[in-house]
Amino acid sequence: MQLSRNRVEALTDGVFAVAMTLLVLDIKVPELQPPLDISQLSGRLLDLWPKFLSYMISFVILGVYWVGHHFQLSFIRKVDRPLVWINLLFLLWVVLVPFSTALLSEYPMTQIAITVYGLNLIAIGVTLAGHWWYATVETRHVDADIHPALVRGALLRTLMAPSVYVVAIAVSFVRPELSLFLYALVPVLYILPGRIDVHWGRRRQSN
Amino acid sequence: MQLSRNRVEALTDGVFAVAMTLLVLDIKVPELQPPLDISQLSGRLLDLWPKFLSYMISFVILGVYWVGHHFQLSFIRKVDRPLVWINLLFLLWVVLVPFSTALLSEYPMTQIAITVYGLNLIAIGVTLAGHWWYATVETRHVDADIHPALVRGALLRTLMAPSVYVVAIAVSFVRPELSLFLYALVPVLYILPGRIDVHWGRRRQSN
Amino acid sequence: MQLSRNRVEALTDGVFAVAMTLLVLDIKVPELQPPLDISQLSGRLLDLWPKFLSYMISFVILGVYWVGHHFQLSFIRKVDRPLVWINLLFLLWVVLVPFSTALLSEYPMTQIAITVYGLNLIAIGVTLAGHWWYATVETRHVDADIHPALVRGALLRTLMAPSVYVVAIAVSFVRPELSLFLYALVPVLYILPGRIDVHWGRRRQSN
Amino acid sequence: MQLSRNRVEALTDGVFAVAMTLLVLDIKVPELQPPLDISQLSGRLLDLWPKFLSYMISFVILGVYWVGHHFQLSFIRKVDRPLVWINLLFLLWVVLVPFSTALLSEYPMTQIAITVYGLNLIAIGVTLAGHWWYATVETRHVDADIHPALVRGALLRTLMAPSVYVVAIAVSFVRPELSLFLYALVPVLYILPGRIDVHWGRRRQSN
Repeated sequence: MQLSRNRVEALTDGVFAVAMTLLVLDIKVPELQPPLDISQLSGRLLDLWPKFLSYMISFVILGVYWVGHHFQLSFIRKVDRPLVWINLLFLLWVVLVPFSTALLSEYPMTQIAITVYGLNLIAIGVTLAGHWWYATVETRHVDADIHPALVRGALLRTLMAPSVYVVAIAVSFVRPELSLFLYALVPVLYILPGRIDVHWGRRRQSN
Repeated sequence: MQLSRNRVEALTDGVFAVAMTLLVLDIKVPELQPPLDISQLSGRLLDLWPKFLSYMISFVILGVYWVGHHFQLSFIRKVDRPLVWINLLFLLWVVLVPFSTALLSEYPMTQIAITVYGLNLIAIGVTLAGHWWYATVETRHVDADIHPALVRGALLRTLMAPSVYVVAIAVSFVRPELSLFLYALVPVLYILPGRIDVHWGRRRQSN
Repeated sequence: MQLSRNRVEALTDGVFAVAMTLLVLDIKVPELQPPLDISQLSGRLLDLWPKFLSYMISFVILGVYWVGHHFQLSFIRKVDRPLVWINLLFLLWVVLVPFSTALLSEYPMTQIAITVYGLNLIAIGVTLAGHWWYATVETRHVDADIHPALVRGALLRTLMAPSVYVVAIAVSFVRPELSLFLYALVPVLYILPGRIDVHWGRRRQSN
Repeated sequence: MQLSRNRVEALTDGVFAVAMTLLVLDIKVPELQPPLDISQLSGRLLDLWPKFLSYMISFVILGVYWVGHHFQLSFIRKVDRPLVWINLLFLLWVVLVPFSTALLSEYPMTQIAITVYGLNLIAIGVTLAGHWWYATVETRHVDADIHPALVRGALLRTLMAPSVYVVAIAVSFVRPELSLFLYALVPVLYILPGRIDVHWGRRRQSN
């Protein structure tokens, strides 16, 4: 095969690295108005907490998707044009995260901002699930002896986040603060080791 | 050979990752004027649609060029100083895409903005074609047994986009909206698998 | 093992490259007010010295942490989910350095800015130490024959910086300029070859 | 050796990719004042020519240094702590190029801006020469059978640029436009194949 997995990984890692780092550009150093009263600085810094919180949630969510992509690619043996383009679509949504994060941190209790942020995350998750589905259907791009339970388990695990985000958007019409809690909750579900890691453990020696 | 293909790929992947991600900096979170009327936010977000559309077109066009570069490098066996410099010229034009995209999204129906955007894309495409020509002439940098039809087919395929962009620029004097349609059309032509993928398929086992 | 060390390194190197380069965005070209008096430019450039100094200190401190991460990964043989997440937490703090540097360079003699900068560096250092501790405890992720003195030495060396930063924050309440001196001093301690390099030297042939 | 050449290359390629791409942030889309007269746009774009020219010169100069670094690393067999730190110092100067380029493009005929830009380039070149000197003295980090003429030739070639920049700074006191010409000239000298490529050619088969 001419298309190499290495370069797809390199572009993906680069886009994630830049997107994760651009998140910080939304946290601006407070500018004090003259007459300069330096004692205001602490208060102004504390006012930045929604920015810091959004930064951390988005960074960790990007981390979850990066680990998910990493996990998928570790099983993929060959890359073709459609798979590269599904990957590029995935990155297209990833790059929008600094925008939707800045929107959410600017208007944290606003239904429309919560919806835009959620739709962005749903687009990422669904595309990543589609990437896995395309790669594994008829085991075209993976080892032929991959266990069907692993294929199915990883798909469901990937679709878990978008499902919660759909609920978070629905909830935002009545309780926006609950939506934010759900956004912060999702990464926790993924960071905790799951049943998928057992399969991982079993396959450990084969790689 | 002292110059390594790996580092040329690493720099190229890095530049593409950053350029693709910088595109999002042009999409700014709307700032509402006080007195704050949060209901305006939806409308202000919808007003951003030319920014989102330009973002997506440029991201996908950069994706097309990245896949094209990826394709070329998969055949190139050695890298010399002139080839590295053609590659750097290619990247010089790639880095300008966030600027020409921002210009087009700010003035989408303006002939001069359409022209600048088109010239930027033509420069990328022609340089990438030159890169392939230089690498394959007398099969200096590729395998000696590469099929002449593949060499010629890839060259024509690479020159297809700049040709359409020349038409788009010409058309912009009378129908700017048609030019924008042509810009959005080009990536579709490239994402659809073409005859080149058949050659790819044939060579699959050799790599 | 499915998770690859290479991709963890690639993401880390990418984040460090972007964070190091974003530091320069805080150094703005002086804008002269009309009537334009170009002779003012030298003075205005000299006024930027706290920006340049902060830039250099932060760049070198990030360099120290990058070398430290590089050093750890050179001993780590396998990567699991918790280790990847400790690494992502490490990067989460690294990405904040452009912010805390901009804060410090804007308010260099202010106790709260010195504290925020110090806390950021402490978070990086403690997470990096935790990364090493998790990787080496019961030699789970490293070679079983790694010398206990190396494990312990590297841990203490990593914890040296956060310890100095705690002192720097304490000192900032009475002598902020001394805190800045301590921040500038720490990288010097790490750049000088230490006892750890002897172990390095000994192991040189094994890799 | 524990420190790997790969990661030094990855960080370097990443920093170059970001620095090259950040250069474009200095080229801002013209904002027309209302009443909007779109016919002014062409003129406003043409006014950007010093920005475009500075962008291109700096991009190509960074390309020259990247190729030079690439060339050196291709001979270096092992990396130790001092070499990593010389490399980080080299990157510290590279990251400043977007700043000094923005300064020069804002004040192109100003002696102080020409000097700052030149000093930045001299710092990069001298550090890169020091990197080569440190790596090759007593052939510590390179193959023992490297030809002394190659060692010396590469050193002189690397020092050529800083020498011209010293002249350019001196000249800027009387003829600033001549300094700019010298800045634009230097990359041309490096892009043209030199005697060093003969050695390259000779060694081609060994790698």
